Amino acid sequence: MSEEKRLEIPRGFLFAAGEAGLRTHGSGPDLGLVYSTVPAGVAALFTTNRVKAAPVLVSQQHLRGSRNKARAIVINAGNANCATGRQGMDAARQCAKQTAKLLAIPSEQVLLASTGVIGVPLDPGQITSQLPALARRLHPEGCGSVAQAILTTDTRPKVAFRSLKLAGKNITILGMAKGAGMIYPRLATMLGFFFTDAAVEPRFLQAAARRMCDLSFNRISVDGDTSTNDTVFVLANGMAGNRMIRAKSAEGEKFLRALTEIAQELALELVRDGEGAQKMAEIRVEKAATAKQAEAIARSIGLSPLVKTALAGADPNWGRILSAAGNAGVAMEPDRVDIYLNRILVCKKGMAARYDEAAAQRELQGRESLLRVVLHQGTAAARFWTCDFTEEYIRINASYRT
Amino acid sequence: MSEEKRLEIPRGFLFAAGEAGLRTHGSGPDLGLVYSTVPAGVAALFTTNRVKAAPVLVSQQHLRGSRNKARAIVINAGNANCATGRQGMDAARQCAKQTAKLLAIPSEQVLLASTGVIGVPLDPGQITSQLPALARRLHPEGCGSVAQAILTTDTRPKVAFRSLKLAGKNITILGMAKGAGMIYPRLATMLGFFFTDAAVEPRFLQAAARRMCDLSFNRISVDGDTSTNDTVFVLANGMAGNRMIRAKSAEGEKFLRALTEIAQELALELVRDGEGAQKMAEIRVEKAATAKQAEAIARSIGLSPLVKTALAGADPNWGRILSAAGNAGVAMEPDRVDIYLNRILVCKKGMAARYDEAAAQRELQGRESLLRVVLHQGTAAARFWTCDFTEEYIRINASYRT
Repeated sequence: MSEEKRLEIPRGFLFAAGEAGLRTHGSGPDLGLVYSTVPAGVAALFTTNRVKAAPVLVSQQHLRGSRNKARAIVINAGNANCATGRQGMDAARQCAKQTAKLLAIPSEQVLLASTGVIGVPLDPGQITSQLPALARRLHPEGCGSVAQAILTTDTRPKVAFRSLKLAGKNITILGMAKGAGMIYPRLATMLGFFFTDAAVEPRFLQAAARRMCDLSFNRISVDGDTSTNDTVFVLANGMAGNRMIRAKSAEGEKFLRALTEIAQELALELVRDGEGAQKMAEIRVEKAATAKQAEAIARSIGLSPLVKTALAGADPNWGRILSAAGNAGVAMEPDRVDIYLNRILVCKKGMAARYDEAAAQRELQGRESLLRVVLHQGTAAARFWTCDFTEEYIRINASYRT
Repeated sequence: MSEEKRLEIPRGFLFAAGEAGLRTHGSGPDLGLVYSTVPAGVAALFTTNRVKAAPVLVSQQHLRGSRNKARAIVINAGNANCATGRQGMDAARQCAKQTAKLLAIPSEQVLLASTGVIGVPLDPGQITSQLPALARRLHPEGCGSVAQAILTTDTRPKVAFRSLKLAGKNITILGMAKGAGMIYPRLATMLGFFFTDAAVEPRFLQAAARRMCDLSFNRISVDGDTSTNDTVFVLANGMAGNRMIRAKSAEGEKFLRALTEIAQELALELVRDGEGAQKMAEIRVEKAATAKQAEAIARSIGLSPLVKTALAGADPNWGRILSAAGNAGVAMEPDRVDIYLNRILVCKKGMAARYDEAAAQRELQGRESLLRVVLHQGTAAARFWTCDFTEEYIRINASYRT
């Protein structure tokens, strides 16, 4: 993680956080503002849930109106502004309008993201009254405070970055994310924001954002639920002065790789900091017939509550892993499957291998484990990351609001 | 439940239970034998998991060989005989062969079902050595002891029956089931056995079994996992002397209704007795555009861990219900949705209704709740049953084997 390194902030991005009093539990910063000194190209991905929160709907409208340009993002925790009807849409629009006015930019260049409880009306005044102070405090070094302000049941901020040389220019990509619960493949209750000073061709930016999500946030699970507010924004403002990065170029590949690395770093942090999570496991499916088969099986294992509770109990119960693989809805030859817990072969050709049960248990007692499932059907592979399912998860979610 | 009523046993079915010492935790009966004094027609449904246990594979072979006739079922708990390779297949076949020999029937007329831990070799001698004693004890009144012997983490046996008059003859249908964990739509780790003395046309029997499962066992969830051993057998031995029951007849409808009622009764008992479950909820989706939409939405709500933990915490968090509905993968108009917790309207047209939070909480403190989701898009409806997700579920599953 990047906390030990000094964060490098892409040129032209300023940040500020504040407290709007939206949290139902305790207090603390719950509002973030991000500003790009010049219009940035935007790639955006939103929740697949049919119930979409007001900030999602308004951001989608704005991106259509601005042809995917933005200069500001307003992010709040504590209230998802979802299932709040026309009043919720009005509240979201008011926040955007007020931000636009303060920063002297078009409303359509303001994006919104919210996380928190569903179905509680959002009073826009709580946000708009704080915006002038935030606008005054905008600063590159405010980045960490925004990463902190957007957390809900997360226990720590998640920030990662890469600096790289592209066609002779230094460019920086910075990402931040929040997660914790409702984390499931098709974007989780997850907000992710990426900022780069690189100039990136708009269609390639969208394609890169999608690919990056497919290989990171769409490969993790905390509890298998998908939220109404999931949002990923990638802003590229071009202030590095580089020649436009395009698809199918060496620069494009390098950019995508860096973006994906950052996203994977953040995604793993989301899993490690999952609600109640004490352990993380990487699921690696190898020698699959196709990438689709590998991914489906890795996903099915990562989502299985029985695998996740076995992980919590450090129980080397490979039968549950094999059974979850069999539930992936894709063809599989059980009699060829080998399963390793870290380096210990526990299942050979679909049957118990000879292994030391106590040693296998010890492997699962560590904070991070590798579950390797080797199908022996081809050459494709996929990875997925999951956390253990603990009593603490139940405690957190059986009393979220009360 | 039928425990208060005196069980009526369909003619010609005999039962016995015993102890083979297969349980890894504690002791007690773990072996059941069922015998029909004449060959019975069989309808069978098996797990959709690609990993199928040896008893599933052997039963499938036997049913092909016998053209869906059977006279005996051997059922064991404690060991699933799954992921046990050729040795496991041999063990299953030996159990069937030994049973056939004792009862002087063809091997192919013996069916098998196992439940318990995966991946541990099954010593057939533990079962075959007990079979002679079981064969001697076969008796109609042994039914309850078999329902007891097949339990794993279930806390109580599940038996239900109906007696009805069909075309002038009294017929009886008796069902028993076990479940507890790994309970999910596409058959759960769930064994279900149905016995009737009615004569039923074979293709109608299979169709009725499938329809009955679709409306009962496929509409419940404990944890969303699907096991390698799921099995439902329906045996009809014709000893009631009735005219053959056929599809598209008044008798057929009546038979199907009784069968489905029994299965629903058992399915609800499975949910009530789900691992760690303290509460049950019926999810009723109404006024849907299509039955498919209704079913998908009911299912998505019933599977959501966030809905299930809210139920555990008696938190009237209708936002999670709405969000889960939005995740069903089918079209929905969120702005029309009304949600009721029992009789309390908590969400009206996709927004918070005016309701007394404390009263809504009290509704969820009962052992059984009704979550009604009214879509206002048409006239279709569907029901689904789920249990709460408790810390006890995690405790049970984080230490199943150790």
